[in-house]
Amino acid sequence: MAIYKVDTTDFHFNLFELLKVQDLTEFGLDVGSIKDILQEYEKFVRTVLFPTREPSDIQGIQLKEGKVIAPACLHEAKAQYYENGWFALGLPEDIGGTPVPEAVSLACLSMGTSANVGFAMYPGLSKAALNVIRLKGSDEIKKRFIPGMMDGRWGGAMGLTEPGAGSDVGALLTTAKPKDDGTWSIKGMKMFISSGEVDFHENTIHLVLARTPNGGPGTKGISLFIVPRNWVNESGVMEGTNHVVCTKIEEKMGIHSSATCELSFGEKGETRGILIGDEFDGMATMFIMMNEARLLCGLQGESQSSLAYEMSKNYASQRVQFGVTLDQHPDVRKMLLKMRCVVRAMRSLQLYTGNLFNLAHNKTDPHAEAFIGILTPICKAHFTDQSFLIGSEAVQVHGGYGFCKEYGVEQFVRDSIIGRIYEGTNGIQSIDLVTRKILKDGGKNFGVFLKIVFETFQKLPSPYASSLGVVKTLMTELEKTTQLFFSWGSQKKMNLILRHATDYTTAVSMLFMSWRLAEGALVAGDLLEKNSSSYTREYLQSKQFDFTFYAQNYLPQSIALLQTAQLGVEDITQVVV
Amino acid sequence: MAIYKVDTTDFHFNLFELLKVQDLTEFGLDVGSIKDILQEYEKFVRTVLFPTREPSDIQGIQLKEGKVIAPACLHEAKAQYYENGWFALGLPEDIGGTPVPEAVSLACLSMGTSANVGFAMYPGLSKAALNVIRLKGSDEIKKRFIPGMMDGRWGGAMGLTEPGAGSDVGALLTTAKPKDDGTWSIKGMKMFISSGEVDFHENTIHLVLARTPNGGPGTKGISLFIVPRNWVNESGVMEGTNHVVCTKIEEKMGIHSSATCELSFGEKGETRGILIGDEFDGMATMFIMMNEARLLCGLQGESQSSLAYEMSKNYASQRVQFGVTLDQHPDVRKMLLKMRCVVRAMRSLQLYTGNLFNLAHNKTDPHAEAFIGILTPICKAHFTDQSFLIGSEAVQVHGGYGFCKEYGVEQFVRDSIIGRIYEGTNGIQSIDLVTRKILKDGGKNFGVFLKIVFETFQKLPSPYASSLGVVKTLMTELEKTTQLFFSWGSQKKMNLILRHATDYTTAVSMLFMSWRLAEGALVAGDLLEKNSSSYTREYLQSKQFDFTFYAQNYLPQSIALLQTAQLGVEDITQVVV
Repeated sequence: MAIYKVDTTDFHFNLFELLKVQDLTEFGLDVGSIKDILQEYEKFVRTVLFPTREPSDIQGIQLKEGKVIAPACLHEAKAQYYENGWFALGLPEDIGGTPVPEAVSLACLSMGTSANVGFAMYPGLSKAALNVIRLKGSDEIKKRFIPGMMDGRWGGAMGLTEPGAGSDVGALLTTAKPKDDGTWSIKGMKMFISSGEVDFHENTIHLVLARTPNGGPGTKGISLFIVPRNWVNESGVMEGTNHVVCTKIEEKMGIHSSATCELSFGEKGETRGILIGDEFDGMATMFIMMNEARLLCGLQGESQSSLAYEMSKNYASQRVQFGVTLDQHPDVRKMLLKMRCVVRAMRSLQLYTGNLFNLAHNKTDPHAEAFIGILTPICKAHFTDQSFLIGSEAVQVHGGYGFCKEYGVEQFVRDSIIGRIYEGTNGIQSIDLVTRKILKDGGKNFGVFLKIVFETFQKLPSPYASSLGVVKTLMTELEKTTQLFFSWGSQKKMNLILRHATDYTTAVSMLFMSWRLAEGALVAGDLLEKNSSSYTREYLQSKQFDFTFYAQNYLPQSIALLQTAQLGVEDITQVVV
Repeated sequence: MAIYKVDTTDFHFNLFELLKVQDLTEFGLDVGSIKDILQEYEKFVRTVLFPTREPSDIQGIQLKEGKVIAPACLHEAKAQYYENGWFALGLPEDIGGTPVPEAVSLACLSMGTSANVGFAMYPGLSKAALNVIRLKGSDEIKKRFIPGMMDGRWGGAMGLTEPGAGSDVGALLTTAKPKDDGTWSIKGMKMFISSGEVDFHENTIHLVLARTPNGGPGTKGISLFIVPRNWVNESGVMEGTNHVVCTKIEEKMGIHSSATCELSFGEKGETRGILIGDEFDGMATMFIMMNEARLLCGLQGESQSSLAYEMSKNYASQRVQFGVTLDQHPDVRKMLLKMRCVVRAMRSLQLYTGNLFNLAHNKTDPHAEAFIGILTPICKAHFTDQSFLIGSEAVQVHGGYGFCKEYGVEQFVRDSIIGRIYEGTNGIQSIDLVTRKILKDGGKNFGVFLKIVFETFQKLPSPYASSLGVVKTLMTELEKTTQLFFSWGSQKKMNLILRHATDYTTAVSMLFMSWRLAEGALVAGDLLEKNSSSYTREYLQSKQFDFTFYAQNYLPQSIALLQTAQLGVEDITQVVV
């Protein structure tokens, strides 16, 4: 049977030993009060959210008489989520939020997302939409929309995709025509809109990309609009329908508790929108939301993997086969250890990325913004790739039971595969990393980051010599491949770069994963020496083991990927398929 | 939308150019008549079987008033399958079969299995059960059971697994007590029984493992019994119920058209069985069926991958993004090329394995039996691992549409993951390969096989030099790792061997995959030179490309796996998880 469990110790270790979030004095939160928040959140997740995971997967979302209906259990969970103040966590005080370090906010979101990933998308997208309004809206706009979103009456969503414009957002056909009253008349069709409508929000505040009459072709001619499902007047009072109609709910492989809507705008009557950000600047404005959504996507990967690992560990410690528990079989033990070190590396890299937002904000690290740019596609792509694999390993550990619905394990595979596709496919993430985040500035920021990474590795004492050797080979091959990319770039051989971007991204991701594990191993070593920490020796030793195991067993794969990239100098788009 | 397509050319190339099945004179079939069989089978699959794929996935199997109900579309497909003589294909003439070379039979099964993998399990398991009866039954037994199974009135199934005895078959609790009339009274519970009952067969002939009163503990005390769901008298006439009751149908992630039954024997009344094979020899007898089922499992992997590739290729050639079709994007093209070379390698290795059955039977190859032993766990484990990955790549190529049910692509992921678990998990396949097929005879037969493999590679002309270099490194690392396994074996460090068995199996599998592609490349090269074959130049060149692409892009991963195994000299069962 599915159980909910979270590795609280490892969250504490990352937050308090590695990131030292208690030192972010602007929040005035000490270790004890942060632990309390985590504990309260965990209790909510375990007792309220997790019990919805299976029933909401089975019942799913339905479109009935034009309304998008969520299972009753989600209504209750949503109500408590807002009542308990969890939506407000991490938001600024001036709009009624409870500021906490970003890494603490992510730790909480991770717990919630692990428990019901489909449900977590509603508050996740609402918060992302709210952040666009908060950062780009006028005071009038903020007053009009934020209160309804803060108290949970209204949800938020993101209207990018259209039938003919999936990855290729610039091909969209939705139009916006200016009206005399300063609003815009929106007409078009959007599809695959997560949280596009749901009956536990009386309204949905859509952020919709559309082309204005003077907008040229491609992404540069696109603007962003606030399009409420039901109109909201200037006093922030909800009025009648704005003719945003859900025409279809997708029947999907997984995330059945998330409403994936096809929406029509301006078909059944006029749909009005309000421009947010500058005209033609829609993509840039939307990217505030997109980047947040990409990190949430990565968090889905990390959190699903985390629970999949905990369930597998639990099962393998109980199921007896051939006279011993499953976890005594080397092959199973290896799967569990792999899951553990990958899960912990993702957790650490994710919290590190979250913490960069605070360092960027309080200006303690001049590179923080750039590092977030580098790490966003990595968290998105690598974590979702890994969670699909870890979900399938969890099925494997559970054997035949893993394939049966009642054990709640196969759901990980069904729920996690979409993470590789939405918010920009993982192929697109790789292109983003390589072209925009590395090649564009001549590899400057990437180089700074690699230096920091290398400094950590250099601190590893001699017992890690063999693992360090693997890391050094990896860094050398990475350097070679990056140089090759630059040389291909200068020769305009973009197809060669694009051919290898995915493998390259995987290799870079694995390097960063091992770096986080190395950080953990080093700090664990210090704590073991001091012999006076609140962590058990067993836990600290496991942190040391994690790095070695990951470096020796999995990093060689990333080296092979890079070597392969160096060999593959043919433009394969010319090869007949 | 889902489409059915099969690479007929590649089947022809494997059958007629690589294996030369037309030279198996005992069948008296020339190239033309074999092509006719394939063409007829393909037509049946495309027009009758494939249209059942989606509806039978949606409707699934139901347990209603004690009966196991299949969707109507499967009744019709099953009727035509038997009427058209497809069940008889590959079976001997004396029982009403139509003998064909085994590779031809597998080619047909592959097409059918790709079109509806869940349905394919009914005739697949029926044939496997029939083969046990045919090979181990007395003449009386054969006359009693074979006619009903040949004409499709009766299906067959395999009763191994019990709730407490999954992989650990020896832990089973089902008992068989001798009766005065020579039959045995069977009592117990079996679970996860594929084709355990279905209403398009009026009877199911179970082969059930049970322990007799004098049967000791473990697998050595187990015997095999024919247990019909409805009793069959000595004249082969079906009588009343034998009290084999389906108590539950599993709700599974996939293969919804396959009935996965929990069965009770002797609960509601006496269940009688007939001993087949010697008492206590049940496992050995059952292994006739198990080995066949394992190869069918591999075939599920190959065939699902094949269709997933064809659907992806088709979609990517039509969907336009950023002004060009998807397949013009290097990342997508790479996925397609990878899918193609992996699919073709699996197809070739599978048909090669099938052909060995004929070489064993007509005694033209003294090693054929041993090679089948080596290749069975490889086809089972590697093909099912690959098909899960290729299914997920197919989803990725289709983007958001791949995640939606109506496109028929996500079904590949749901249908293929079970292949890694049933008929012995892939972990168990690896243990089988390493301990029983390699270590047990001191690596003798494996060595002979590797020599054959190496001879092919040595024939590769100079344009393949770089790929050949990769292959040679792989073979060297394989040799080193195998020696290490022997040395660990002699030191009784079995846990070290078992820790790495899965990675080792993957590496060996990839070597054999590349070997089949090399064979294809060599023969294609010859045909290109002759310039007079029935194959297009484009196809023949693609065979040359496949080997190079696979060797350079994927073999380095297998080298890394072996190097990792050489590094991992710690018994991880001692590491706290």
